[in-house]
Amino acid sequence: MAMNALNGEGQQGQVVVGVDVGGTTITAMVVDTSLQVCGQATQTTDKSTPQGTFKSIVATILQALEIGQTPLSQVKAAGIGIPGKVDPTTGTVHLAVNLNWNHIPAAEWFQQALGVPCYIENDLHLAALGYYHFFTDSSIQNMAYVSIGTGLAAGLILDGRLYRGAHGMAGEFGHIVMDPHGPTCNCGNRGCLEMYTAGPAYSRAGQEAVAQGKLLLPPEQANVTAVDVFNAAQSGNLAAQEIIHTAGAFLGRGLQILIMAYDVDKIILGGGVTRAGDLFRHAILDEWQRQASLSPLAAEMLKPEKLECAPLEHNAGAWGGVALAHNAFPHAVSPQRIANQRR
Amino acid sequence: MAMNALNGEGQQGQVVVGVDVGGTTITAMVVDTSLQVCGQATQTTDKSTPQGTFKSIVATILQALEIGQTPLSQVKAAGIGIPGKVDPTTGTVHLAVNLNWNHIPAAEWFQQALGVPCYIENDLHLAALGYYHFFTDSSIQNMAYVSIGTGLAAGLILDGRLYRGAHGMAGEFGHIVMDPHGPTCNCGNRGCLEMYTAGPAYSRAGQEAVAQGKLLLPPEQANVTAVDVFNAAQSGNLAAQEIIHTAGAFLGRGLQILIMAYDVDKIILGGGVTRAGDLFRHAILDEWQRQASLSPLAAEMLKPEKLECAPLEHNAGAWGGVALAHNAFPHAVSPQRIANQRR
Repeated sequence: MAMNALNGEGQQGQVVVGVDVGGTTITAMVVDTSLQVCGQATQTTDKSTPQGTFKSIVATILQALEIGQTPLSQVKAAGIGIPGKVDPTTGTVHLAVNLNWNHIPAAEWFQQALGVPCYIENDLHLAALGYYHFFTDSSIQNMAYVSIGTGLAAGLILDGRLYRGAHGMAGEFGHIVMDPHGPTCNCGNRGCLEMYTAGPAYSRAGQEAVAQGKLLLPPEQANVTAVDVFNAAQSGNLAAQEIIHTAGAFLGRGLQILIMAYDVDKIILGGGVTRAGDLFRHAILDEWQRQASLSPLAAEMLKPEKLECAPLEHNAGAWGGVALAHNAFPHAVSPQRIANQRR
Repeated sequence: MAMNALNGEGQQGQVVVGVDVGGTTITAMVVDTSLQVCGQATQTTDKSTPQGTFKSIVATILQALEIGQTPLSQVKAAGIGIPGKVDPTTGTVHLAVNLNWNHIPAAEWFQQALGVPCYIENDLHLAALGYYHFFTDSSIQNMAYVSIGTGLAAGLILDGRLYRGAHGMAGEFGHIVMDPHGPTCNCGNRGCLEMYTAGPAYSRAGQEAVAQGKLLLPPEQANVTAVDVFNAAQSGNLAAQEIIHTAGAFLGRGLQILIMAYDVDKIILGGGVTRAGDLFRHAILDEWQRQASLSPLAAEMLKPEKLECAPLEHNAGAWGGVALAHNAFPHAVSPQRIANQRR
């Protein structure tokens, strides 16, 4: 493990652990006070029982520590991102559908299992926090981390602080109603933004293109996935490219609303749909350009440099866990310094 | 002037001044440390020259002090709301179209004229701040003050703090694009929310109703105003009632987006259009109810008690000026206590 270069007193060998829990995999990262990664591990999420899920998270943390050759006694704190509705002050997970967790006193469980202070937070909030502290220029104090996968939502840093809203629901942009006569969303409402721009929108449109003979699937495959559409588009299929362009343009409209709401300097796009690649980014920017050509206000607000796709190798969620646990090193480095070190 | 009941030491006779500058009138309010109004004055805004406007603001402040029998020497500070783009840290008004002010070092001018510390802020931001501190239950920490007049915008209190955004543009909800094929807005873009729900939308629709013979105007009057439509609706005219219902329902859609964005506990509606009355409020709530009947998420987020119309007698803007200047009484009362006293 790297020694702490910043402050020698009483800190030798101290680390924090950042954890990103997903419905499919768990990633744990062990980071020292000079922000070097000492160990990292990824395991499949055990979803057999709530207790099983808990155990697989603990096992991933212990594996990362073992890889980093760091005993638990050197861990100052852990920050853990959970995909669901979380109360960070009590450490309770109210509801995490993907983990089948319901009113779980998670922070307490982790603390008992590991014997170190553990903090939990919603995974998207942590991704925003992680991106803000470790991958964003220190001049940026207002940003949104927009995750687009099965659904769509934004984690928000406003005036340099994580903004959760009155009930932890701020940034639920996937369910803003774009068209009250639009298709019915999983939430029950009609015309929600995510119906046009999240993963399932790509597979639905891909399925239609297959039915119309505009897109071919391997004969053994029954359903079109979003990834099939991305691959077909990259191979030059026009129907697939059109699907990405339509969904991207719609997202451009949604992000205009987001920018008018929060006046952020950066929008970071993360999640599986960003794998649609350049075509996707261009579709968003084309829609911004269309609006900017009509309106000086839109031109001022919708500057292309505000849009950034999160590199796939960044695990913003686990870094957010590090930031959350970082209060264990209050004397170490300021957020600005952290950001500069990581760039 | 009422004596300060909270802290007798060194504070006798101290007051702050809150000022709301509008394109038509200026209101100044003199308030003592126990938050009693000692004097208040309203004057017409002189818009002949930028200097003339400035002088009419100063004259209104001096009149309010005279009415309150308070010499300038007892004023601790003044907080002044300006309708335009303002930098509160430098005290500069970058642009206030209605006042014809362009790069005016307003705080400095006021300070020189009055000899007391003067703070400026955008008028809508101040209205949000004033409503938050003086007219909202202390349990509310996240709220939006939505002003609907010629245009539409929101002032935001998030986690108990005024949120301005990276460039003071947060809450510009009037220009979220609801329909890219909609009517052209003053900003140049198409289908902006305010095209469907602000004052001019009522007069446009009223004009159409007159052309169709569904609404009658006094013979000497050429143009329909929003107020004509409100009056006709209150007299039972069906076309006018329909106009209010359509615009209100559209606003209901816009406010759904606002709630998903910020997760606020309160939306305060202010501005001239709120004079459309109960019909208007019901149209918003009908749209919320429609969405709530489809979706448990919408039912959770769109609770009718979140919506409140600002009583016309509250001058939230001037009270916001009081809150801004209130730092001059840091020892006096906490925001919570202020709120409780005013209710």
